[in-house]
Amino acid sequence: MRDTPYLAVDERVLEANLAAMAAHAAERGLALRPHAKTHKSPEIARRQLAHGAVGLTLATVGEAEVFADAGFDDLFIAYPIWAEGPRAERLRTLASRVRLRVGADSRVAVGMLARAMASGEHPVPLAIAVEIDSGHHRSGVEPARAREVAAAALDVGLAVDGVFTFPGHSYAPGAREQGAAAEAAALEVARDSLLAAGIPCPVVSGGSTPSAAAASGRSRGGVLTELRPGVYPFNDAQQWELGTVDADSIALTAVATVVSVRDKNVVVDAGSKVLGADRQSWASGFGRLPLVPEARVVALSEHHATIDWPAAVQLPALGSRLTLAPNHVCNAVNLADELIVEREGAEVDLWSVAARGRNT
Amino acid sequence: MRDTPYLAVDERVLEANLAAMAAHAAERGLALRPHAKTHKSPEIARRQLAHGAVGLTLATVGEAEVFADAGFDDLFIAYPIWAEGPRAERLRTLASRVRLRVGADSRVAVGMLARAMASGEHPVPLAIAVEIDSGHHRSGVEPARAREVAAAALDVGLAVDGVFTFPGHSYAPGAREQGAAAEAAALEVARDSLLAAGIPCPVVSGGSTPSAAAASGRSRGGVLTELRPGVYPFNDAQQWELGTVDADSIALTAVATVVSVRDKNVVVDAGSKVLGADRQSWASGFGRLPLVPEARVVALSEHHATIDWPAAVQLPALGSRLTLAPNHVCNAVNLADELIVEREGAEVDLWSVAARGRNT
Repeated sequence: MRDTPYLAVDERVLEANLAAMAAHAAERGLALRPHAKTHKSPEIARRQLAHGAVGLTLATVGEAEVFADAGFDDLFIAYPIWAEGPRAERLRTLASRVRLRVGADSRVAVGMLARAMASGEHPVPLAIAVEIDSGHHRSGVEPARAREVAAAALDVGLAVDGVFTFPGHSYAPGAREQGAAAEAAALEVARDSLLAAGIPCPVVSGGSTPSAAAASGRSRGGVLTELRPGVYPFNDAQQWELGTVDADSIALTAVATVVSVRDKNVVVDAGSKVLGADRQSWASGFGRLPLVPEARVVALSEHHATIDWPAAVQLPALGSRLTLAPNHVCNAVNLADELIVEREGAEVDLWSVAARGRNT
Repeated sequence: MRDTPYLAVDERVLEANLAAMAAHAAERGLALRPHAKTHKSPEIARRQLAHGAVGLTLATVGEAEVFADAGFDDLFIAYPIWAEGPRAERLRTLASRVRLRVGADSRVAVGMLARAMASGEHPVPLAIAVEIDSGHHRSGVEPARAREVAAAALDVGLAVDGVFTFPGHSYAPGAREQGAAAEAAALEVARDSLLAAGIPCPVVSGGSTPSAAAASGRSRGGVLTELRPGVYPFNDAQQWELGTVDADSIALTAVATVVSVRDKNVVVDAGSKVLGADRQSWASGFGRLPLVPEARVVALSEHHATIDWPAAVQLPALGSRLTLAPNHVCNAVNLADELIVEREGAEVDLWSVAARGRNT
């Protein structure tokens, strides 16, 4: 018996999720480059590669260093890296060890990257992908201006793999198809802007977990060549509520103990320091109970989740254990040092969240 | 030059905050038992004791173990602990090492605590405080029923220190005085319920950071004997927006780099994996910039904060550094392994977030 709260992974569900996304990508003619920020765990990344993934996506140089140390040699940091200070040197070291691609959305950032690669005894090769904004309005250039960044990169001696985007606006109810369509349209404009300038564009990369379902590769008449979904190994309450998956496909839950009960309020010992505090405006609460779908997590403190218990279900006793799916699994995993792996309900392994907290 | 993002503590502001709360508690005739869940750092706890704190408050057995290891010997786990499995044994070991008080809000939990204390070769002494609900409706019994739990504790051989509550409903605009009044009224009912049953009640413990300002001890005609504020060493954007403090009293900020700028959208590299995803309904955004009060953090991803930049202030250049106050500093600190201590803007120390992730 393990003290609660902890994060448990159902290995059977995880494997089914990995297999399904790999089959989907293959069927659509897309290379799969999963985003490892979700699991931060070399063990899960190895399984993703075993299912046919071509490499990994990371968010930070620190995450990429952890996965390079674990033997992964084809990495894409899908982030507009600002290569200054110690980070410049770290990036150069990393690029000398693995096949590295990084994101860029400005001429100035591209210049910094080139200087970082040239600062050692021998210049180190680095590829960029131009980040474009497909409607999420975070980082990224307008699609038609992708060639300006690509040309700047070629001018300073960097390689250009192509273009990428993150359709974050597909994380909303009913927005999945629309998000995927906006993503494909923006990527096509960006790719054509490179091709019109005589710049090859072998990589056209997109695909959040919600939009991945609607993405098509060239073999199916689509524009994408590569998918970068993150959440799909685990899924979470958000994906359930968005309709991307059903509750049976949620592989990671927080196991928590009932510590207080009054009327129909059930309080468990997993709070925002275990589940994360994420709550989109459309979410029904601060997480969901896959086995009690009518329950609602109506309040969350650091070490308490307050559950409004459905009248039709018997109230759990003090001391009993409940499983909660976090709203956003990436942030929940980043709070844990290890994941408890279960098969048929029995604990079979511990996986290290090796890149936890590697934010720089 | 340190790579961003990281959490920086301004030592001068921290010391001023520690001194001000200690003076406030002394002036009101209240013992100060700060909640260490906020900083999770023995270095800061030592400073709190140097300023006159009588002991520490913790949220979990795991946190208490870390502070016991660091030499702190008077600990209150202000949480309705369910003492089963390995946790029962851990709690007994802890109670044999330090003066320990834990929360309880049911006869059943009290029975579990007593069994845990009796399970070794020699029984170990443990004190409880009865948790009461002062309007936050999380854990805690109704105030008038406090004596039922206290009597049950005495029946099974535990000591009873008194009663406590957490006025979490004081974390809302204009709710501070009302929260403090509800807290005092509920604690008075609970204390009197013990006294009427002939049970001494030396400890009457309350006080969130917002309600602490309005709390009074017995020497000032109030009912409280003890305050347990957590956030006050650092403060945060929530306390600023609630009016508990002004921006000058915020001692902890995330230092971040501008990685993308378009129109008046400024994107920095501190996202929810650094700031936490907390956002109360009344908050103006996902954090605040103390030096640019008109700026608003309008969107937050894991590694991006999108700032709507005020027209009257010059846009920051790519690569420049900005400081952001998290909405809820407790959750931001729990994401970091260390805090960077600065004096007059220069780095002077690193403090370990030793109890980070100790949720069990």
